[in-house]
Amino acid sequence: MSDTTKKPMLRALKGVVQDSPPIWLMRQAGRYLPEYREIRARQGSFLDLVYAPDLASEVTLQPIRRFGMDGAIIFSDILVVPQALGQDLQFIEEKGPILKPIRNAEDLKRLSFENFAQTLAPISETLRLTRASLDREGFDHTTLIGFSGAPWTLACYMVEGGTSRDFINVKSWAYNDPASFEDLIDMLTQAVIEYCIMQINAGAEVIQLFDSWAGVLDHTLFARFVIKPTRRIVEALKEAAPHIPVIGFPRGCGRMALDYVQNSTVSALALDQQTAPKWAANVFQNLMPVQGNLDPVCLLAGGLAMQASAEDILAHLARGPFIFNLGHGVIKETPPQHVEELVQMVRGWA
Amino acid sequence: MSDTTKKPMLRALKGVVQDSPPIWLMRQAGRYLPEYREIRARQGSFLDLVYAPDLASEVTLQPIRRFGMDGAIIFSDILVVPQALGQDLQFIEEKGPILKPIRNAEDLKRLSFENFAQTLAPISETLRLTRASLDREGFDHTTLIGFSGAPWTLACYMVEGGTSRDFINVKSWAYNDPASFEDLIDMLTQAVIEYCIMQINAGAEVIQLFDSWAGVLDHTLFARFVIKPTRRIVEALKEAAPHIPVIGFPRGCGRMALDYVQNSTVSALALDQQTAPKWAANVFQNLMPVQGNLDPVCLLAGGLAMQASAEDILAHLARGPFIFNLGHGVIKETPPQHVEELVQMVRGWA
Repeated sequence: MSDTTKKPMLRALKGVVQDSPPIWLMRQAGRYLPEYREIRARQGSFLDLVYAPDLASEVTLQPIRRFGMDGAIIFSDILVVPQALGQDLQFIEEKGPILKPIRNAEDLKRLSFENFAQTLAPISETLRLTRASLDREGFDHTTLIGFSGAPWTLACYMVEGGTSRDFINVKSWAYNDPASFEDLIDMLTQAVIEYCIMQINAGAEVIQLFDSWAGVLDHTLFARFVIKPTRRIVEALKEAAPHIPVIGFPRGCGRMALDYVQNSTVSALALDQQTAPKWAANVFQNLMPVQGNLDPVCLLAGGLAMQASAEDILAHLARGPFIFNLGHGVIKETPPQHVEELVQMVRGWA
Repeated sequence: MSDTTKKPMLRALKGVVQDSPPIWLMRQAGRYLPEYREIRARQGSFLDLVYAPDLASEVTLQPIRRFGMDGAIIFSDILVVPQALGQDLQFIEEKGPILKPIRNAEDLKRLSFENFAQTLAPISETLRLTRASLDREGFDHTTLIGFSGAPWTLACYMVEGGTSRDFINVKSWAYNDPASFEDLIDMLTQAVIEYCIMQINAGAEVIQLFDSWAGVLDHTLFARFVIKPTRRIVEALKEAAPHIPVIGFPRGCGRMALDYVQNSTVSALALDQQTAPKWAANVFQNLMPVQGNLDPVCLLAGGLAMQASAEDILAHLARGPFIFNLGHGVIKETPPQHVEELVQMVRGWA
């Protein structure tokens, strides 16, 4: 086993300030890498790849081998949770996920935990294989990251039946019948807890909770359907696995991120690119480690713009407990060379 | 002429706190009203209606006659500005606007001011007709609102060629070649100034600047492409028409709204529904009047949820200079009865 006290990402999450900060990137395993596209071409569908532990593990390791990232986030998707609860899920090329929508208390009956653990078992296997490969290949500085969608964001996809611009269906349910909507959120909270514990048991050293649509709610629903379930999840994980930090990523929620930091009990906050680094340093980093937040389009652009943005982030945030990342996932058109340059820049910063 | 000092919306914009606040709703003239759908069915395309002053004025007046709103926002669209600069524009039913994209310095040459004033002349006529009708029909409490998209948001549509999820093209241009992108922003700044002055000359008593996509930028680009052009516009309007207040609506920009309030020189801030009313009261309303911010989905839902949300907003914001509104436009499925109930509730509040 690797010595976790030496892993820069885990050290940052304990509040340690390091000469140069650790770095990983959301969606670092994916279509911008030719070695990923090669495996995808052989394997067929995106979901087939997610549920094939040997290939998913291979894909997880690709950016580690190429760039030496400090974090290896498991190649998977947040929508495996609704699928494991029995909701029909497909990924349509260039269109994204399509789910058979769940719109009311009656529809909730279609969901169950019956096949939950069994459906997700291949993902545990991916984590085990990846952890073993990281050790075997000598990546003893790289932290293995498990993740889940947070209940609100999972509910958005489940109720809308895919992505959405306005989230009318899910928000209408939440406004019109909060009690039955809370049944869905409660079920998802339980599911996320079980899924994260599975991932921790399989070797995940950190959990990141993605709440990608946290920013579409007013502050009352945000407190009830973002902060409250997140707190329940983090408290359950702290009881089951006290040493595993949880990074919360309530994307796009602006100033409500402060309520989240103060009430969700997460260990660290992931920042989107809308968050000014200076403000994040003064407000959030005084309370917990932070992670972020280069604009993915800035990484796509590269050159001077990327350099200036990354320096701004480093100057404000790297003097506190900090993990360098993007504010959202890597865009598929990104030249791998830009990622290489960014990693060099962050490594060279002091 | 009506006595503008008695109009509740203008009084709120001067900082006056009133027993019950004025109310109007973004997109209050539109598809949720049967009388609007009737005119649309006769007229044909959305753009035909925008450029038909008698009908556009009629549609502008519909929600005033039905609900007695304190503000009448002219029925139009922000994309008339790119169209008047020579960019090809169509609206496809259920899909939204399609523009022939402008992606670089070369493409900029396709734009010009040659037909600008002439193209927009019908909209001035709509304002004149509406102002006359408001006076004639005795709506002497109703303020006539002109509006424009702000340069950044117009650029988003012009470069992406329509709506977008990720704004990769417009942001890439801004990152890769900020000098030529600034040429586009400068041209739009000039266009918005001219267009707003036209509207003021035609009777607009307030201008609202819609920066719907202000929230997709990091803080550096936000300062350069949102705050800076907005400040230039507001300063030019103050010089041309010192008594006309300008409401800025930098939607979705979270905590950066504070930079906007402190630096853009707008007269008032429109809030999106993500902004917690209590925070807005403490932070923004101490600096300027505010407007907002009921979630349009909450208006769609109606009932107890709407009542609770509206009360929360009123309790925190109506004791300062305040205009009640939504956090975004009325959704087309909204029952008009919910709007009626909301207006009664705001009128009855004290």
